[in-house]
Amino acid sequence: MELATPCLLVDETKLKENIRRMAELSQKTRTALRPHVKTHKTAEIAHMQMAAGAVGITVAKVSEAEVMAAAGIGDIFVAYPLVTEEKIERALDLSERGRIVFALDSVEGARMLSQATIRRGKRVEARLEIDTGMRRTGVPPAQAARLAQAIRDLAGIDLRGIFTFRGAMIDGKGTLDRRTAGLDEGRTMAGLAEQLRAGGTDIVEVSVGSTPTAESAATVTGVTEVRPGTYVFNDRMQVAYGACSIDDCALSVLVTVVSTPSSGRIVVDGGSKTFSTDAVPGSPPLCLRGHGEVLGSPDLLLDRLSEEHGVIELPKGGPPVEKPRIGDRLRVIPNHVCTTVNLHSRLWLVDALGKPTRELSIAARGMVT
Amino acid sequence: MELATPCLLVDETKLKENIRRMAELSQKTRTALRPHVKTHKTAEIAHMQMAAGAVGITVAKVSEAEVMAAAGIGDIFVAYPLVTEEKIERALDLSERGRIVFALDSVEGARMLSQATIRRGKRVEARLEIDTGMRRTGVPPAQAARLAQAIRDLAGIDLRGIFTFRGAMIDGKGTLDRRTAGLDEGRTMAGLAEQLRAGGTDIVEVSVGSTPTAESAATVTGVTEVRPGTYVFNDRMQVAYGACSIDDCALSVLVTVVSTPSSGRIVVDGGSKTFSTDAVPGSPPLCLRGHGEVLGSPDLLLDRLSEEHGVIELPKGGPPVEKPRIGDRLRVIPNHVCTTVNLHSRLWLVDALGKPTRELSIAARGMVT
Repeated sequence: MELATPCLLVDETKLKENIRRMAELSQKTRTALRPHVKTHKTAEIAHMQMAAGAVGITVAKVSEAEVMAAAGIGDIFVAYPLVTEEKIERALDLSERGRIVFALDSVEGARMLSQATIRRGKRVEARLEIDTGMRRTGVPPAQAARLAQAIRDLAGIDLRGIFTFRGAMIDGKGTLDRRTAGLDEGRTMAGLAEQLRAGGTDIVEVSVGSTPTAESAATVTGVTEVRPGTYVFNDRMQVAYGACSIDDCALSVLVTVVSTPSSGRIVVDGGSKTFSTDAVPGSPPLCLRGHGEVLGSPDLLLDRLSEEHGVIELPKGGPPVEKPRIGDRLRVIPNHVCTTVNLHSRLWLVDALGKPTRELSIAARGMVT
Repeated sequence: MELATPCLLVDETKLKENIRRMAELSQKTRTALRPHVKTHKTAEIAHMQMAAGAVGITVAKVSEAEVMAAAGIGDIFVAYPLVTEEKIERALDLSERGRIVFALDSVEGARMLSQATIRRGKRVEARLEIDTGMRRTGVPPAQAARLAQAIRDLAGIDLRGIFTFRGAMIDGKGTLDRRTAGLDEGRTMAGLAEQLRAGGTDIVEVSVGSTPTAESAATVTGVTEVRPGTYVFNDRMQVAYGACSIDDCALSVLVTVVSTPSSGRIVVDGGSKTFSTDAVPGSPPLCLRGHGEVLGSPDLLLDRLSEEHGVIELPKGGPPVEKPRIGDRLRVIPNHVCTTVNLHSRLWLVDALGKPTRELSIAARGMVT
């Protein structure tokens, strides 16, 4: 069977090896693994992660949690501040059927959650989000104790953990070092947990770690859980971070060469509605060249994207490259796999030869609320 | 009713005015209007465009054509080279029920189409794609006559038109001038059509024009059709091109403030899975600041996006801005509306006060093949 392009192919062997390797890290470091499913949004892959030893999953949206709960995942951390009654109620509905852990980073959000639990006559488990340098959501460590105290004064909420997302951001000197970033993240959070416990808050869970930082963060004493997401598939960003090699990238986008209008240029049927553009080529800290690279031909890059066109300029100089012809099919490794998967409704598991074996629904795609 | 965020809101009055204005241009210049539905991917909006006088629609994908044909649109130009048997067959299936116009830019594609028509014993209508400077698909004008001749030698294909997409690209001097771009595009194509007719090819349709260039391209003698897409909604890119004002932007993304973790920063529940990032802030030729701006508060910009977080840094200096609070809802005009809509499955028509009146399915979203 010939698949219509563009479409997502996932090498099942690499996928399983990526899942196994992270699970092994978790076992070795005695750190719970709670993968973020934002990367794949696919129930079957969440179940593979659970079968390999994950304690539960992480999501960013209640709608993602709804899809995963309906698929039988019973332990879900919604790692995002819910500040509207409608979303809190939906999450509470889910908590009738399984473990749902809430995220808090403001008194306003905590009050709203507390009131909702009082109305239902039930208690919920929550974690405090800490900003360890990303400057998005989360309170700075210095303000955590005050917010923890405010939450303890509210009914219905068991504040049992703290969590952060630091990522492999550049340090003050503009260099990338995922190991240092992970140690820094882990130590900051473990130290904060000690401090909160000394202040009377019963912090049991200290949850950190992204794909680039999990390996070192998991080794820090006091860290209890890591939440990497991208590792299931990996991508060119993770290669640039040093978190994996290009051979560990399990997902590629199958495209067809639709035009070879001049000697140096080929055009494929995938553009910015097929590949994410959010890891900007050439921008710091990653300085990726191109929007994706052809599997097995690292010199062939998606140099420009319009909505439905991907333009590959053949490299000048260097060893001659065999120019793909109209109708040829190429597999392209994307820069950022999470936002690329988010553009598609299904993916194909393929064997080592690229032969499709099973179609999976990306059931939580489009679950934006 | 309170909508769950993030979600797309379309001001119906502005939408209808945008549709009316482009239809009026088409009538005044006696140029057919065949809007590209890539922007909205919504059957009801295609029907609004048809009702206002469009002769048919343009799509980039056979799957989009399938959705629009099923919704009753009977005249569809697939402005993309089809080079696989599977896609050609699907387009031919559609042509049993309505007018389907094919796009060609290679002998290989033309041969494949010809063979498919022979198998079915039917003739199809096609247009030749010309590259007027975008350097993606399309043959350079100088090579058009040779390809036209090759197509005339094939059975089953009536080559009746030429088309191009130039966009408002910068000229050689690095400046943007959409009027000059449109005149240049129109004149190049009208001249080429003359030349092809002199060579014996019966070119009837000369199809050009994008939202920024349609206005001037439509005035060129010999141009018969324009294919703008973005004008239905408009966006910050079109404002930067000078093609509209910010008040003409009909689509905004409704988001909720989920966190105000420091005095100068607020975080909303829409990131790079809600807003497109492909109109890169700060990059030439557009040099847009931010990934989107808050409707009515042009100083409030989406400064940074991660997947589900949009970070707004409050402007320093200048007149004081009232800081949005947790739970507040903001409407954000995106940089590039086409790729933003592509991330969502539905949109809400709203009245002038922002009150939702009707939910529409973005039925052709995810139609990637």
